[in-house]
Amino acid sequence: MPSMSKESRRTQRVVLAAGASAAVAAVGSTANGFVTGPALRTLPTQTTTQQSGYVASAGEAAPQSNSALLSGGCFALAASAVAVRSGARKARRSAVATRATAVSTETATDCINAIRFLAVDAINKSNSGHPGAPMGQAPIGFCLFAETMDFNPANPDWINRDRFVLSSGHGCMFQYSVLHLTGYKSVSMDDIKQFRQWGSKTPGHPENFETAGIEVTTGPLGMGVSNAVGLAAAEAHNAAVYNKPGMPLIDHYTYCIMGDGCCQEGISHESCAYAGHLGLGKLIVFYDDNGITIDGHTELSFTEDVGKRYEAYGWQVLTVTDGNTDVDAIRQAITDAKACTDKPTLIKVKTVIGYGSPNKADSHDAHGAPLGKDEGQATRDQLGWKYGEFEVPDHVYETYRAHGARGAKKEEEWNKMWGEYKKAHPELAEQFQRIVVDKKLPANWSDCLPKATPETAGKATRLHSQDCLNAIANTLPELIGGSADLAPSNMTLMKCTGDFLKGTYDGRNMRFGIREFGMGAVANAISLDRTGLVPYCATFTIFSDYMRNAIRVAALAKAGTIFVTTHDSIAVGEDGPTHQPIETIPSLRMIPDLLVMRPADCNESSGAYKVAVELSKNESRPTFMAFTRQALPNLPNSSIENTEKGAYAVLDPADPDIVLIGTGSEVSVCWEAAKEMKDKKVKVVSMPCWELFRAQPQSYKDQILPKGVPTMSVEAAVTMGWGEWSDAHVGINCFGASAPGNTCMDKFGFNVPNVVSCANRLLKGEKGVLSDGSQGKH
Amino acid sequence: MPSMSKESRRTQRVVLAAGASAAVAAVGSTANGFVTGPALRTLPTQTTTQQSGYVASAGEAAPQSNSALLSGGCFALAASAVAVRSGARKARRSAVATRATAVSTETATDCINAIRFLAVDAINKSNSGHPGAPMGQAPIGFCLFAETMDFNPANPDWINRDRFVLSSGHGCMFQYSVLHLTGYKSVSMDDIKQFRQWGSKTPGHPENFETAGIEVTTGPLGMGVSNAVGLAAAEAHNAAVYNKPGMPLIDHYTYCIMGDGCCQEGISHESCAYAGHLGLGKLIVFYDDNGITIDGHTELSFTEDVGKRYEAYGWQVLTVTDGNTDVDAIRQAITDAKACTDKPTLIKVKTVIGYGSPNKADSHDAHGAPLGKDEGQATRDQLGWKYGEFEVPDHVYETYRAHGARGAKKEEEWNKMWGEYKKAHPELAEQFQRIVVDKKLPANWSDCLPKATPETAGKATRLHSQDCLNAIANTLPELIGGSADLAPSNMTLMKCTGDFLKGTYDGRNMRFGIREFGMGAVANAISLDRTGLVPYCATFTIFSDYMRNAIRVAALAKAGTIFVTTHDSIAVGEDGPTHQPIETIPSLRMIPDLLVMRPADCNESSGAYKVAVELSKNESRPTFMAFTRQALPNLPNSSIENTEKGAYAVLDPADPDIVLIGTGSEVSVCWEAAKEMKDKKVKVVSMPCWELFRAQPQSYKDQILPKGVPTMSVEAAVTMGWGEWSDAHVGINCFGASAPGNTCMDKFGFNVPNVVSCANRLLKGEKGVLSDGSQGKH
Repeated sequence: MPSMSKESRRTQRVVLAAGASAAVAAVGSTANGFVTGPALRTLPTQTTTQQSGYVASAGEAAPQSNSALLSGGCFALAASAVAVRSGARKARRSAVATRATAVSTETATDCINAIRFLAVDAINKSNSGHPGAPMGQAPIGFCLFAETMDFNPANPDWINRDRFVLSSGHGCMFQYSVLHLTGYKSVSMDDIKQFRQWGSKTPGHPENFETAGIEVTTGPLGMGVSNAVGLAAAEAHNAAVYNKPGMPLIDHYTYCIMGDGCCQEGISHESCAYAGHLGLGKLIVFYDDNGITIDGHTELSFTEDVGKRYEAYGWQVLTVTDGNTDVDAIRQAITDAKACTDKPTLIKVKTVIGYGSPNKADSHDAHGAPLGKDEGQATRDQLGWKYGEFEVPDHVYETYRAHGARGAKKEEEWNKMWGEYKKAHPELAEQFQRIVVDKKLPANWSDCLPKATPETAGKATRLHSQDCLNAIANTLPELIGGSADLAPSNMTLMKCTGDFLKGTYDGRNMRFGIREFGMGAVANAISLDRTGLVPYCATFTIFSDYMRNAIRVAALAKAGTIFVTTHDSIAVGEDGPTHQPIETIPSLRMIPDLLVMRPADCNESSGAYKVAVELSKNESRPTFMAFTRQALPNLPNSSIENTEKGAYAVLDPADPDIVLIGTGSEVSVCWEAAKEMKDKKVKVVSMPCWELFRAQPQSYKDQILPKGVPTMSVEAAVTMGWGEWSDAHVGINCFGASAPGNTCMDKFGFNVPNVVSCANRLLKGEKGVLSDGSQGKH
Repeated sequence: MPSMSKESRRTQRVVLAAGASAAVAAVGSTANGFVTGPALRTLPTQTTTQQSGYVASAGEAAPQSNSALLSGGCFALAASAVAVRSGARKARRSAVATRATAVSTETATDCINAIRFLAVDAINKSNSGHPGAPMGQAPIGFCLFAETMDFNPANPDWINRDRFVLSSGHGCMFQYSVLHLTGYKSVSMDDIKQFRQWGSKTPGHPENFETAGIEVTTGPLGMGVSNAVGLAAAEAHNAAVYNKPGMPLIDHYTYCIMGDGCCQEGISHESCAYAGHLGLGKLIVFYDDNGITIDGHTELSFTEDVGKRYEAYGWQVLTVTDGNTDVDAIRQAITDAKACTDKPTLIKVKTVIGYGSPNKADSHDAHGAPLGKDEGQATRDQLGWKYGEFEVPDHVYETYRAHGARGAKKEEEWNKMWGEYKKAHPELAEQFQRIVVDKKLPANWSDCLPKATPETAGKATRLHSQDCLNAIANTLPELIGGSADLAPSNMTLMKCTGDFLKGTYDGRNMRFGIREFGMGAVANAISLDRTGLVPYCATFTIFSDYMRNAIRVAALAKAGTIFVTTHDSIAVGEDGPTHQPIETIPSLRMIPDLLVMRPADCNESSGAYKVAVELSKNESRPTFMAFTRQALPNLPNSSIENTEKGAYAVLDPADPDIVLIGTGSEVSVCWEAAKEMKDKKVKVVSMPCWELFRAQPQSYKDQILPKGVPTMSVEAAVTMGWGEWSDAHVGINCFGASAPGNTCMDKFGFNVPNVVSCANRLLKGEKGVLSDGSQGKH
């Protein structure tokens, strides 16, 4: 079956007729080690195309097998063989099994072992890290980074590159190894020697903001595979919007490796169910099924049938029974994953953690600690690796870099196509240029945002948010997003576009389902796709708790996600304390590099969106927004410009006796209270965003909050933290209650009489928390 | 097949031989509407017992079908029929289909409609709520609360009651209706008329702390079903520990209803995978498969094969194709769920949301808004409900209350058995009495906790935590818990006991897997089981984010969970910023009614555990604890008693010039800094718990933090909130970095020179944030 060729794209077609084991035998019998999930019992009477190619000697320009397959739909090999984990799970000394390959078996083996030993050596040197995963995943790494993926090490920003996500981010030496081997400048051998050290480009988990070539930041388990879903969704959307016959501007795969941890986490359930629902056919996830977690063997906690679960999600599920040595099986699985264009594919790869380590393989000992010098040598002996520490033989570099060079050529070809596209489709090209290439907002884009005066009838800020989203959606085709099944409550549906669903990927309304955490990670990745998309995602303010770590990672990893939340206080009302945020907004203000905005009216909502969109597009930074369920009046002096300063005066008497600061729905309570306090000069400040105000020059801050003037905050949230801005605080430091929203606000002290009373107490010298909601507890 | 009987426990046995459709036909042909999941194709050649019984007239003492089944193992009916959702999904006017029932068909119909119309009327009156779910779930409610479940409305605390959880908590009028109908005093008709009003016993989501008869607080989707897993786990554990032949002290089922939302949430994936792994055979979950979510039909976002997914988890999956009227099918499913003793059962019940409403059924309109008066009447007409608003006919009350009376009798029988048990097994009975009945800690229990002096060699507080947990485990058999697959990192394994796993439910080490959110909810429920268990659960401090809402709900719902976290700061080191908590601990201090403890040494760790265990056991309140990865010295004056005060002086010179407050690992930094500042009188305060210190008398607070003395906090976390205790702050308001832990601490300013320098700046009058970690950003 192997055929020789020096052309890079010549393929040998093998038409496989349906027929379970016969088909498998044709490919390579059970030695192939590649079987479908157990439930794919019915074979389609369908044909497909299998490709393979190799060259006789290493170093030569080699063919590859990642070109698009001609047949669509899902194709499944089936066999009576089932994937049985070896009882002993002993690592064996053996070269990889290759059948039809781009390089010689020997070179492939060395290329794979190079990944393993860079990991072993770096982790030994730093005396910290996780060698087991890279050692098990190395053959996948070889297949992807030396044979399959399209990328250009010289330009990690190439728009149409294949994306790769290491969801099991603790095994990041895997990724640093392949980035180094393929020639990314971001990871030199010195960087590898500085693994996990202060200031290095090789931190303990992959960080896209530190290391070029890393797409997303992983480590929090399940986050990476959810990001991969987002990257694949971005690809599907951009492809649907821009691709033209013969001109597939956006046409790449998203690959991911995840481990047991990612599989167990709920976030992966959410995002992978969503991916199955969407039918993201260009998402290919390797599940590194090594049977070991920190506690020990997975039998302790994890005995489900993962493959069957993914089939239930609507994925194609393939199995590689020996991922340690059977490179052909991995290749075949990738081929068949690509052949299935209407479903994501999960490739279960049975590996041995710490493969090759005579004393630590297949045990938790290989997971999170260095092998040590002696075991490193023993592993060298077992795997026949004759090279020293941090030594990579030339033929290994050459093999990986030859593939990198092919990627560079792919980029050249793509650039040529893009040139032709500009001529053929000038209008779309202009849009692509602005959004995807330049990643710039149109001039005066924010003119579209709604404005109001105090005379304009008030409404809930969630309705202002709706107006803003729709105005932006009309203006910016790069706005894409949706709600975790709360579209009619969050008011997040864009009227100018359809649903982003299987078959309608050009739609921009994402139907995330009731999957907040997955949603957050998917939205983050849509930003980190770096094709200029501006993602938003929405839920009730309280349920941002469900995706809190995605919000945190957005801030850390510089994802420009706009987190739209509504029902932002106890004014939620009847749904009660499980649905009433108290600590949510203040606690999010603690996340570094996250903007938290709580607008009070129309103009502040517009201002919040202006800030959020520009941060997303221009700086790839996230914004969290909290809108009300209930109607609010439009405030004096409220404007987009004032909102951008984080705080401004709504009422601004000269030489005020007291300053009342409100946010969101409490600004108008302060305003009303000020009107009541006729014998005092009451300044009222609206502070929609602490972070923006903190960044203002001291002179502006002093102008808004004059020194020496007693200042009181009023916010329907916990008071912790308000000491930064005010002397006295009206807040709620207890849980809310189920009752109509206005009743809740009233009972817990967010009414004019209580605010006036507390203001008077402050004027008499009382400080600190003057009203904490405890009066409302019955 | 129906047989008559006036005995409550007489059963009719129907031996079902293997053989798919024949077996189904024997039970009730396709009219039965009850089919197994598609993958249960192979029928065991096993027999089982099917029970049914009914009485001729309502009001009579009726037999029931919930007694224990004799056969173990899983039994599955299979049929060629598949569950096809009706295209039109039209609600039909029809009485329920009953075949072999305790009450007449007419009465059953009325009992079901009573649930529906109490929901419709209450929600119309309050003008707020979710009528659709109760209308669809009413037949399940009838089967459970009028026929199946063992409970005593007069004593909601009966230890061996069946547990019920409404995971789709927004449909809480379902639960209030059945509690009212069965005779719980906690829900009078007046309470129902006060639905969702201030101070009512019928809040907008079920709240166990408001309404007797409600086991857990639901509303945050997926939380309830995860709680149900925890309740079933508690049952399995207690049964394994206490049950003796013929004396099943703990022997009850846990029932749950969940909707699409719960199914989609990641938390349910985690907990249900865990339940399948554990093989919790007495957990029976109804999936209210109504095809509608807030956004519209589930086709928009939710097209997975839920049944297949649950099979993959190791659940038995049954389907009821017409849950609106086919009561027999529901009964049969419950019977078969009970017959499967080694797996949890998911019963997919196809229902129509808002069933009976001519214009709103099967649409989002029925989900979250009142039907309105007119549609309420139209629904009455359609369903033939001839009673007025809030009117319940006597025969309905009689039917439900007859079942309640049977439950009371069950409790009597149980009390008798418990009396005999005390004689037969006095030692275990004593333990049961203390732990489960009295829910009291033994006198002097905390003597077991380790103590140290400053001379004792220091170690990481996570190791102190390990010592504490093991000391408590030896002393308190009610301590049960574990880690989300970080046992060897969190140091949470109890050496005196085995694993809580299928077959070894008496073990107390729970192997939660990498499932933090599910873990938190399961642990909460183990406390809310109210059998005196003290649950703990563990992960890295940063990944408490993943279960943040479970922590919040623990505080709200008064679950006595001990959240053990380790790796509590940037001193985590090499794992980098994704693993380094910065804002985590401060943000948790914002959750009302949650104690957050960050111990600094051995004695503080013991103090933290003393507080946590007593809060859990005596007040059913949660504690969050954060321990270090790195070694720390033992401090002067540190003691359990001082820890219980929340803060105390480590160094206490008379008339101090300055006070340095530290928490956890930073106390020793302050201590060292104080030694450096030889020319000043430096008081050093350790503050392991803000909440406890806040609760001290003012005199104590003034003694610890003398007024007028400049005070500076040092904590490796964001500074927000420290204004409550100190004038100046040393903290970190940026993300950390990957490097050895001591390097991180040093670079970000948590070293003696920087603390001394900042203290001197404070002494010169500088206030506010004096060190924010930004010096460490490279």
